[in-house]
Formats: sequence, structure tokens, C-alpha cells
Amino acid sequence: MGAPEPGRFDSSPFIRACRRLTVDRVPVWFMRQAGRSLPEYRAARGPGSILEAIAQPELVAALTRQPVDRYGTDAAIFFSDIVVPAAAVGFGVDVAPGTGPVVADPFRAKRDLQRLRPIEPAIDTPYVIDAVGILIDELKVPLIGFAGGPFTVASYLVEGGPSKNFSRVKALMHGEPQIWHDLMDRLTDLALASLRSQLDAGASAVQVFDSWAGILAPHHYRELVLPATVRLFAGLAESHPGTPTILFGVGTGELLTSMATAGCSVVGVDWRVPIDEARRRVGPGVAVQGNLDPALCLSTWEVAAAETRDVLDRAGTAPGHIFNLGHGVLPDTDPDILGRVVELVHAEARSGVEVAS
Amino acid sequence: MGAPEPGRFDSSPFIRACRRLTVDRVPVWFMRQAGRSLPEYRAARGPGSILEAIAQPELVAALTRQPVDRYGTDAAIFFSDIVVPAAAVGFGVDVAPGTGPVVADPFRAKRDLQRLRPIEPAIDTPYVIDAVGILIDELKVPLIGFAGGPFTVASYLVEGGPSKNFSRVKALMHGEPQIWHDLMDRLTDLALASLRSQLDAGASAVQVFDSWAGILAPHHYRELVLPATVRLFAGLAESHPGTPTILFGVGTGELLTSMATAGCSVVGVDWRVPIDEARRRVGPGVAVQGNLDPALCLSTWEVAAAETRDVLDRAGTAPGHIFNLGHGVLPDTDPDILGRVVELVHAEARSGVEVAS
Repeated sequence: MGAPEPGRFDSSPFIRACRRLTVDRVPVWFMRQAGRSLPEYRAARGPGSILEAIAQPELVAALTRQPVDRYGTDAAIFFSDIVVPAAAVGFGVDVAPGTGPVVADPFRAKRDLQRLRPIEPAIDTPYVIDAVGILIDELKVPLIGFAGGPFTVASYLVEGGPSKNFSRVKALMHGEPQIWHDLMDRLTDLALASLRSQLDAGASAVQVFDSWAGILAPHHYRELVLPATVRLFAGLAESHPGTPTILFGVGTGELLTSMATAGCSVVGVDWRVPIDEARRRVGPGVAVQGNLDPALCLSTWEVAAAETRDVLDRAGTAPGHIFNLGHGVLPDTDPDILGRVVELVHAEARSGVEVAS
Repeated sequence: MGAPEPGRFDSSPFIRACRRLTVDRVPVWFMRQAGRSLPEYRAARGPGSILEAIAQPELVAALTRQPVDRYGTDAAIFFSDIVVPAAAVGFGVDVAPGTGPVVADPFRAKRDLQRLRPIEPAIDTPYVIDAVGILIDELKVPLIGFAGGPFTVASYLVEGGPSKNFSRVKALMHGEPQIWHDLMDRLTDLALASLRSQLDAGASAVQVFDSWAGILAPHHYRELVLPATVRLFAGLAESHPGTPTILFGVGTGELLTSMATAGCSVVGVDWRVPIDEARRRVGPGVAVQGNLDPALCLSTWEVAAAETRDVLDRAGTAPGHIFNLGHGVLPDTDPDILGRVVELVHAEARSGVEVAS
């Protein structure tokens, strides 16, 4: 494996759009572009848990490359899971197929903090570093590093699994603010160390998936989640200045103005907020990413095409738009539809595209 | 049973707040105030499905009264389920305990429209009319009639049950717009006939639970759901002019301005949108209802009290606020917390409360 060359993708549409620079085409990638919707994924993955798969660098590299090869996306997203760091330090978390992260002994009290010791990526998650290394040698597009946002990871650790009402995590954050603060601190440290190790190994950007932050009222997000998120991005800016960073969650319409102050380069938005409105809320200093409703990719191509054009139209001509879905690719999605979405986005000149004179 | 007296609750805080008139206290009720969180509910309900319970007028009346008696809420919400009309005309829908509505043979094609014939409430749901009649004799507060919004009912009929991604219903609404339009039409007719029968029997107001509308992008809501909703409220205004009407859904931050044009008197909002911002979005001509996060009622009383005051503060002093949760009472809620919330709302003078001179 060669040493990563910092900045080698600086002229790519994805990195330029993250920096709100002009581009020669609107960049596009898809959350969960690697995964069950791809027959080559199902063939390569076989049985076994996703955490087992994530520990195999060659497999991770292959799964990460698959959608780039098939669709010609402008970035690769590292194949991983938001609970990897917590699992690696021994918190006791698994990912159940069809369910998501499950925790046999959920976080309940102050004493559970000690189950979240600092991570040493070279020792605890060498497979992550190795997989990034393989990818850096092979990929012709930027690799986006992967971590869960502190709130979303906390929600799994506290609830014990996916939650409908998030009542336990809310009870903790409101009822035990000091424990909550310490928990956010430890999870921020885990995410920061993991993302730094991916960047050191050669990833060109990172996305923080604080997927469920939208379940919170805006003043609670600002008081109880945003400070940790600010620290996370400040830590990345300190160790890896100039590296594009993306902060994403679903249902975050009321949080966008706060998320835009977190120190990230890009805010990812779901389909509930029209992307023109999202751009207004995040302001001119932050790029936006999104936001085709993934469910519409299960409809006809005509519907997907019309909605893709609608997103491009709303995103407008100002630089700083990365096309994506509003959430992850759904398992039943026809890959051909996604392939045609990529072609369409690339063919239609919109946000930040320099028109040849 | 005596004949209902129209307008007999016109001077009640709930009806006056719906009409954006001054009140002597901020009215409060809770979505799902009748239900599993109450020991007297669990004692009265026994085993058996909720649809069986709903067909027993004396039981429905008792369950509807329980929270009014316990908490002193300013309104009763009719104990029912959003699928009652569809079930009554024989669509084939049940409510599975712990799951929600389930449909063995979901709506898939044009031919399924015939499974949604018009409802004749006196014949198909006499138990609804009978239960309202019992309640009108007994209640000292207004009774709110109950119906599901056309989109939300459609989502269950099309998906076959609760859904995470709503991909089938979205595929239908976008891919088969004529069938979707006809389906909305039939479900609107069902809701309209059911609500009219409840109002004829003596209910003083109605709430339309379009609970999952917030899963839609705003332009899709406006094009594919709002027209049916407008027709529903126009039909109620025609048959029952002046009757307060409430339109509620969760995650509707981006839809509030559209919902406010539906012809309802009140828009119910969840906790994701601060209620001051919700008031700005719905404008001065429509009241608002909400929006304490129900998960916070599972925390300590100190937390619930602080958040209750925060909602009252944000709702401000202008008339037209009905205090409620942002979604239904969660099953694990301590009834004492809810009782104290009612006391607190009644004790604190805010929206529309006339200060004695």
C-alpha cells in the first residue's frame, strides 16, 4: 500500500462542492450505496453478522468499491456501522440482521461510563485502518470516512436497540445531565479517534451520521447535543485542517440552523425539507447534501427522474450542493434506477457547474 | 338519552380556545389520554381486541370518561381507532395489540377501491353513535370526535400495517395518481360520514389524526393529500358550520403552512417545532394545539414541569392555544405526572387568559 497523498482529490467535484467551489458536474453519492440493494453485495457478503464483515479489510474494501464501480458515484462511503467503535472497546453491542444495533446490557447509570474506555484505533480497530489503506490504493474517487453522531450512538446504547419513542435516552439526558454530558464526551472521543484514524489512513472527507437527532426539540438539541458535535468537528479541524466534514440526520428541519453552526463543511438533509429551504437555513457558509426521498426510487423511473430534477432545480445554481438521497438506499431498490439517477445528475448542469464559454 | 344541545359548551375554555377567544384558563387534554397508561383502563378493558372494545358503547363511554374524571382535562377524546370506518365497511383490517392496524389483504390495485364502499354510520357503526349519545348525557366537558386522516389511513391499507419507509404508499401515490385520487376520495367520504355522525350525536368538535403526513415532502403533501383534507373540512363546515376542527400530524414542521390552509380551526403540532414558531407558520387565523414531548413525561416531575412551562411561555399570550402533548401518551407514563401537568397548565395564566382587573 502506498502512503496516502493528502489533497489528491482536491480537484474532484465532490471535494470542490463540499468547499462550495465551482464544479464541472454536480457530484452524487448515496447513503447506504453499498448494501443489500446490490446483488454483488449479497453475493460477496454471505451469512454472518455485519460486525464480522466489517472486521475483514479485503471484504470491506470490495463492498465499498462495488457501488462506485457500478454507478460511477463521485465518492465512496466507507462500509461500516455507527456502533463499531463502541463495540471495539467492549461495550457489548451487536447488529442484528433486519433490526440494527442491539445491546444486551444497555447503558443505565454512571458506572456504565467505564464500559466506554478510550479507543486506540491501531489496536482496537486495525481492520478499519487496513481497509481504508486498501481502498486508497484502488479508488479513483474520494473516500468518505464514517462515524455515528454522539446522540445517535447514545440512543442505541441507552435504549438497548432501535427505538420508537427514545424515551429512555430522553429521560437520561434530561434527568441526569452530568451523566449525559460524560456519555456525550466519551462517545465524542470515540468518534473523533475513529475518524482521525480513517483520515490518517487516507480518507478524503468524513460524514457524521447523527441520524436520529431529529427526534429532539431544537432547544434540547442545542443544549444537550450540539456542544459535543461542535467539539467533534473542532477536533477534526485541529488534526486535519481543511478536510471536508458532513453532518447528517433525518427529520432535522428545525435543527438545520443549529447544525450549520457545528463546524462542519456540509449539512446533509432528508427529503422533508425542500433543499432550497435547507440552503436558506444553513446559510451561505455551509454546503448542503441531499435530498431525494429514497422511497421514490422504488417507484417508476419517470417518478424518480422528475423528483431528481426537482431536487436539482431547488438546489439552484450557487456552488455547494452534493446530490444524495434524503436517507439510505432502501433494500428493495432497483440498482438500475440509482444508476440512471447518477447519469441524470451528471448530465444536468446546476449547482456550481461552470458553463463552458 | 337526551337530545344533544348544540353550542352547550360554547363558553368552555376548550371551545373558546379553538375559536381563538379569550379563556379563563388554558385548556388541556392529551392525545391517547384514555388507554394503557391508566390502571382503570387496563381493569375495564380486559382481553380482546380494541375493535371489539370499540363496538361496546358502554365500555367506550367509560374509557372515554376515565381520564376526564382522573385528570380534569378540558375535553374528552372519543375512544376509537382510525381504521374503524374502513373496518366497518369490510375492508378487512384488524388492530394487533402492540403493533397497530394490520391488513391481511392490502390495497394494491384499482379493484381494491370497491372494498371501500360508502359507510352508513347508523347501520355500519351504530355503536359509535350510541357511545357518543351516552357520553353527551354524562360529560361535563366537550367531546372531541375522532377520525383518521385520509393519507394516514391509506398508509395502513396500502402498506398492510405500520411502516418505516412508507414506500408502497408512496409508490402508489406517485405511480398511480388516478387510483390514489380515488382512494383519497373514498377515505375522505368515510371520515366525513363518520365525523358527521359523531357530531350529529352530540360531539362538540372533531380531530383528524393525519398522524403520518409528516413523512411526505411538502410539495407532495400539497399536491396529493391536502386537496382531500380540504374537502373533508369543507364538508364538515357545510354540515356543521362553526364546529371547531383540529388537524394533527407528527413531524409536520414543513407542512404547517399548508395544513393551516386546510379549513381546520386548529393545527396540532408535535414537539419538534417550538410552538411559537408553529404559531408563526400557521398564522393568526388558526389556533394551535400542543406540544410537550410525551417522552419527557417519563422523566422526573421537575423535567416535565419545566418543559410544560416552556411550552406555555412559547405559546405566548395571544388567544388560540390548547395545551396537549406533541403525540399520544406513552403506555409507561405515570398518570400522576399527567395529573400534575393539568394542574400546572390550569394554574399558569398564558395564552388568551383574561386577567381579572
